[in-house]
Amino acid sequence: MFSVTVRDHIMIAHSFSGEVFGPAQKLHGATFVVDATFKRPALDDDNIVVDIGLASEQLRDVCGALSYRNLDDEPDFAGVNTSTEFLAKVIADRLADRISAGALGPGAAGLTGLAVTLHESHIAWAGYERDL
Amino acid sequence: MFSVTVRDHIMIAHSFSGEVFGPAQKLHGATFVVDATFKRPALDDDNIVVDIGLASEQLRDVCGALSYRNLDDEPDFAGVNTSTEFLAKVIADRLADRISAGALGPGAAGLTGLAVTLHESHIAWAGYERDL
Amino acid sequence: MFSVTVRDHIMIAHSFSGEVFGPAQKLHGATFVVDATFKRPALDDDNIVVDIGLASEQLRDVCGALSYRNLDDEPDFAGVNTSTEFLAKVIADRLADRISAGALGPGAAGLTGLAVTLHESHIAWAGYERDL
Amino acid sequence: MFSVTVRDHIMIAHSFSGEVFGPAQKLHGATFVVDATFKRPALDDDNIVVDIGLASEQLRDVCGALSYRNLDDEPDFAGVNTSTEFLAKVIADRLADRISAGALGPGAAGLTGLAVTLHESHIAWAGYERDL
Amino acid sequence: MFSVTVRDHIMIAHSFSGEVFGPAQKLHGATFVVDATFKRPALDDDNIVVDIGLASEQLRDVCGALSYRNLDDEPDFAGVNTSTEFLAKVIADRLADRISAGALGPGAAGLTGLAVTLHESHIAWAGYERDL
Amino acid sequence: MFSVTVRDHIMIAHSFSGEVFGPAQKLHGATFVVDATFKRPALDDDNIVVDIGLASEQLRDVCGALSYRNLDDEPDFAGVNTSTEFLAKVIADRLADRISAGALGPGAAGLTGLAVTLHESHIAWAGYERDL
Repeated sequence: MFSVTVRDHIMIAHSFSGEVFGPAQKLHGATFVVDATFKRPALDDDNIVVDIGLASEQLRDVCGALSYRNLDDEPDFAGVNTSTEFLAKVIADRLADRISAGALGPGAAGLTGLAVTLHESHIAWAGYERDL
Repeated sequence: MFSVTVRDHIMIAHSFSGEVFGPAQKLHGATFVVDATFKRPALDDDNIVVDIGLASEQLRDVCGALSYRNLDDEPDFAGVNTSTEFLAKVIADRLADRISAGALGPGAAGLTGLAVTLHESHIAWAGYERDL
Repeated sequence: MFSVTVRDHIMIAHSFSGEVFGPAQKLHGATFVVDATFKRPALDDDNIVVDIGLASEQLRDVCGALSYRNLDDEPDFAGVNTSTEFLAKVIADRLADRISAGALGPGAAGLTGLAVTLHESHIAWAGYERDL
Repeated sequence: MFSVTVRDHIMIAHSFSGEVFGPAQKLHGATFVVDATFKRPALDDDNIVVDIGLASEQLRDVCGALSYRNLDDEPDFAGVNTSTEFLAKVIADRLADRISAGALGPGAAGLTGLAVTLHESHIAWAGYERDL
Repeated sequence: MFSVTVRDHIMIAHSFSGEVFGPAQKLHGATFVVDATFKRPALDDDNIVVDIGLASEQLRDVCGALSYRNLDDEPDFAGVNTSTEFLAKVIADRLADRISAGALGPGAAGLTGLAVTLHESHIAWAGYERDL
Repeated sequence: MFSVTVRDHIMIAHSFSGEVFGPAQKLHGATFVVDATFKRPALDDDNIVVDIGLASEQLRDVCGALSYRNLDDEPDFAGVNTSTEFLAKVIADRLADRISAGALGPGAAGLTGLAVTLHESHIAWAGYERDL
């Protein structure tokens, strides 16, 4: 299995609901360094997993739609705890939609898997992995 | 599949038995930066993989029981080469026991996998991965 | 010159005032990974720069008083842009006050300099350096 | 499953053929930081995954045969786009051949998998994973 | 003293002249992860060291003029060993010229120092530091 | 000012004497990732700070004389707390002696400063800086 990973980041405010979150129930924020990994069993005709330029662009776009926001105010996340692991899935699913829509080019039809990791600090990160 | 990882570290002395270890047969030591990854296919009611506060606490506890010791003197490891990969399994198994005993809370019942990586330097690390 | 550095982190929400900040004028947030460096020309009687346990504790305390907050609501920062570089100074000055007050022990009287770096992402960080 | 990873690096020149590569169609170069991960379900008689000394030596050797070269001039890669993901497979396959030939010692017979990751910058990396 | 650092990277081919360079006398290449640090003794009216957006843009521009090239073919570097430390100075001096020309905005007039570090691998980096 | 840094590591056992060290009074150990930085105001005739091959070799040698040992048993360190900051000085001074003795070649005569940093974990490091 081959893979290619590109990295970007978002900076957001949010708060959590539930005693399990302790002090994180208050409005606070995070930088999430976002790694998106694209997977396929065989390389395409250009000998690559994916057009890394397009992959970086699409990740930047998906990150741009989340960054510099208070996620508590986003209609998409109303009543939802925007945990690191949940946001990993949001980003993975949005990237998957773009891949289906052809945004990574025709070669990307061969992609079979996608993993997204969000690093919230030097001592904690979370991820979500799915098929395509 | 979702995952959450927390990081801690231990500082230990030990020696190895067997020619394969070369100079590491002498008493020496290591810092192991320890990453523990908790996995599950679906998030819990709080929209998380695990209570990250409890997970960090349990990892700190498991690390605390190993750190600042000469592992050659620990009864648990008598006659055993405490290699990086072996210690990854020790930490994973001890975390798994705590999960079974409820130390990560009731939500942790949904965890299905655990991976532990020990970084011994900037050029070498080892890991162990198991089901829960 | 000798130095010792310890690392901790804070997770905060804030917004900026001024066109120069672009999208960061909106309420957003950041994880700041905080490195505090203590300096002195000669080691103390224990052959160290500072009691690293006390230094870590004091840094955790100073970080704890900033973390999991919306800095826009903090009276200390009313009408102030809490930029990364500004926050580096805030943390350095608060640590310096604690050093003066003896919180790092009598050996810390020999400290002559302090530097604080705040990493806001994998591609940007800021710092402040001062004498003691 | 147990794993051990060792890190080395190569510094090469190359160019790519195909519009998808944009400016990388021109002769340029890269440092690839190379991580080779060796996997097996159970440890050997010395309680390790692999002799880390031999593993590092073999990786250094495989890297040495690629480094400080213009890959466009290498007969092995004539007419081939030496993408990061492709080079990950080259290194993995060359390591696998050496394992088969006994270069990692008799204990290495128990290895069942191999993964190679090449980091081309702080924001992009690629990998290849195979059975042994 | 305050500082702000932004990171970018370049991917280049080059060769060196002189026996001291050993195998690096052959055409090879490197990724240089580039950190540019801007310094000043006091913050500007916006409470910052420099407009980080403009600083990142100017660094990207300076890097863009070097990246995806064979430096052996660049007229600017004819007959010159484009060592990591030399390239750090090239990038620092080009950034300094842009600062003088006002490319970082009027607030940047208060900058007094500039440091550039180029990471060529996980085990080697080089830098150049100058006044403004 | 120009600089070049090379990285290596040591793995040692030791214990500390003094209540300030808490649990580290017991025999334990550490991996120290060692960064040695060589400085000079102008480049040499080859356009470099130092022959990076020789610098890496000398650092490896100096590290080799410390690694895979129990520092409590080393005559050089009898009755001394081998703290991270102290060991940074030991390594810097040993490198300085080698530079004086010509081990980095004649070009190294232009070196004016040396800094050594020892990373003991992901959250703590120490350094020593001196003139040459």
